[in-house]
Amino acid sequence: MSPVSAERAERLVEAVGEAGLDQLIVGDLVRPGDSAPDASADIRWLTGFTGTSAIAMVGAETRLFLTDFRYTERAESEVGEAFERVTVEGRLLSEIAPRLAGRVGFDDSATSVANLRKLEAAIADGDGSAELVATSGLVAGLRRRKDASEQEAIAAAAKLADDAYRAGLEAGLIGRSERQVAQAAEARIRELGGEPAFPTIVAGGANGALPHAEASEREIRAGELVVWDMGARLGGYCSDCTRTFAAGEPGERARDVYELVRRAQAAGLEAVGAGVGGRDADEAARAIIREAGYDEAFGHGLGHGVGLEVHEPPRLGRRSEDVLEAGDVVSVEPGVYLPERFGVRIEDLVVITDDGHRNLSSLPKELLVVD
Amino acid sequence: MSPVSAERAERLVEAVGEAGLDQLIVGDLVRPGDSAPDASADIRWLTGFTGTSAIAMVGAETRLFLTDFRYTERAESEVGEAFERVTVEGRLLSEIAPRLAGRVGFDDSATSVANLRKLEAAIADGDGSAELVATSGLVAGLRRRKDASEQEAIAAAAKLADDAYRAGLEAGLIGRSERQVAQAAEARIRELGGEPAFPTIVAGGANGALPHAEASEREIRAGELVVWDMGARLGGYCSDCTRTFAAGEPGERARDVYELVRRAQAAGLEAVGAGVGGRDADEAARAIIREAGYDEAFGHGLGHGVGLEVHEPPRLGRRSEDVLEAGDVVSVEPGVYLPERFGVRIEDLVVITDDGHRNLSSLPKELLVVD
Repeated sequence: MSPVSAERAERLVEAVGEAGLDQLIVGDLVRPGDSAPDASADIRWLTGFTGTSAIAMVGAETRLFLTDFRYTERAESEVGEAFERVTVEGRLLSEIAPRLAGRVGFDDSATSVANLRKLEAAIADGDGSAELVATSGLVAGLRRRKDASEQEAIAAAAKLADDAYRAGLEAGLIGRSERQVAQAAEARIRELGGEPAFPTIVAGGANGALPHAEASEREIRAGELVVWDMGARLGGYCSDCTRTFAAGEPGERARDVYELVRRAQAAGLEAVGAGVGGRDADEAARAIIREAGYDEAFGHGLGHGVGLEVHEPPRLGRRSEDVLEAGDVVSVEPGVYLPERFGVRIEDLVVITDDGHRNLSSLPKELLVVD
Repeated sequence: MSPVSAERAERLVEAVGEAGLDQLIVGDLVRPGDSAPDASADIRWLTGFTGTSAIAMVGAETRLFLTDFRYTERAESEVGEAFERVTVEGRLLSEIAPRLAGRVGFDDSATSVANLRKLEAAIADGDGSAELVATSGLVAGLRRRKDASEQEAIAAAAKLADDAYRAGLEAGLIGRSERQVAQAAEARIRELGGEPAFPTIVAGGANGALPHAEASEREIRAGELVVWDMGARLGGYCSDCTRTFAAGEPGERARDVYELVRRAQAAGLEAVGAGVGGRDADEAARAIIREAGYDEAFGHGLGHGVGLEVHEPPRLGRRSEDVLEAGDVVSVEPGVYLPERFGVRIEDLVVITDDGHRNLSSLPKELLVVD
């Protein structure tokens, strides 16, 4: 990844002004300073910082970046001169309060009730002039549209995961445990320089009917369908892909359901494009599953945005009010789950374009029968 | 792990009553339903549920467990009959509101401002009788004291990580990249049936002066100290350990600083025990580092609790107001970091007992010189 462009901060300041605010606090105000990875994709997008303990503040005249002593040197190399960098001795929250002025936005989904109270108290202890205003997803809204370098990063992560799928399939499925298959594929992702973007799902037979089963010790048997959901993280950006494979020759019903999901997935892909509602895209795929009588068996939405986080806006689903935009990167992943029997899910990752989409997934979609 | 005892819910209900509450909401109310692992250690401790999307509610007459359709079957096997189990069609938050009554506690560190507003609105839309009350760490307070099965689980995770250290050292350090060393050790953790509890730190030379450096592509060279911080997660419970090794013969100053940290760590171990303040334990180790003139170079606290989370109460540090109790499991990890030169950290994981501690770390602490 090339360094983050200062243009991102400028776009954010514009959005902050349009929201009637003087400043915006950016970062994880749930557990600031804790060591959760991905604590703040917003911070990474805005500043390029890859550490886990940082808060930024932007305003017309303000580009401020706070971190603690553990990350002073990393901030110097990653954030550079685009922001005024401050290494904080105490808690990040206490240090930011004296610097707030005017109408100050905070992200109400990224701020805990406890930390809002602490910020309010710190402001009251000072000159008390700043007014805290709840905002929602100002940075996430800008993060939706991926620029060329971000699309390239996600495409590279997707390609890496596809390579790990292929390596995994070469070792076969029948007689191996779900966990063995998942671990070998994740080891391959790491060898290739990435990390798993989320715990890999490998779910054979009835386990495939649990949409988010984890890979278990259960042995994959001949005749089963295997749902395999995997993504890689590379340079901070995630991929997300699912294929359903047949471990040996499957039954007729399994083949029929597979082809149904494949048609629904193709319809979903056909539907997406700039200007299309997330609900309409979902319905394009869902209608096919419904008409085949499996409406109840498709219990989740068609897809979600993918970027610095595995799940981010926009949403494609029955209740979505999002409208797709060029530059969105979204998953298209219908599924049919038949409890105690089997499941099928097929998922591609696509870049939304003005005239449709560009598919980042290179794996075939006809049913592969693997020994 | 044996199934979670119903006694945990009873102890929690008692604490809820003592806090003047009728009910308590348990779980991650920041991003409920999202796929972040470890979203709620409280839920796991209380119910045994290992999935990522669940909210529980307890009160004198209430044991309620809500999850979504993805986890219905897992909840059945893991949570069982100890709780009334409900599979929620829509959002977990909307479904819980009609069930609230009286004074209802929520954890203000685990609840986002946005979700508190949503809960308040849902209550107002209903009969409006419930009153939401901010609480802090009621479950985390009970989680501090680890029972015998939990101590066993953490000890097993620590032993697994120690085995991975030994396997890693056999492959040597000099000429390998930090990332190679870390990846090989993490692969060993997985082979042994665990997962890394956090991204392994292997930091050679000047990188060791960055207390939370990640393993980089930098090659480890002869004469360097290597800070290696690693933990395993097994059955949900974490371990945490650090050793500093010499890659070939180190210089005299490095040996001196190593011995200083080793003495400070021994003093920290000597100090801990039931009834001891987290601040006093920290001071016992810090005094030794201060007297040697390296006060500035020990910029973090002496330790932290470890359990279902890698960082949990209590804290051992200059600002800690915690008092250690028998059954706490804490790290004891002083360090000295000399910017642009090297760092040393030595960390054991111990169970606090009435007369001191039981050490769960089996690795030696004299400076090991490794090729």
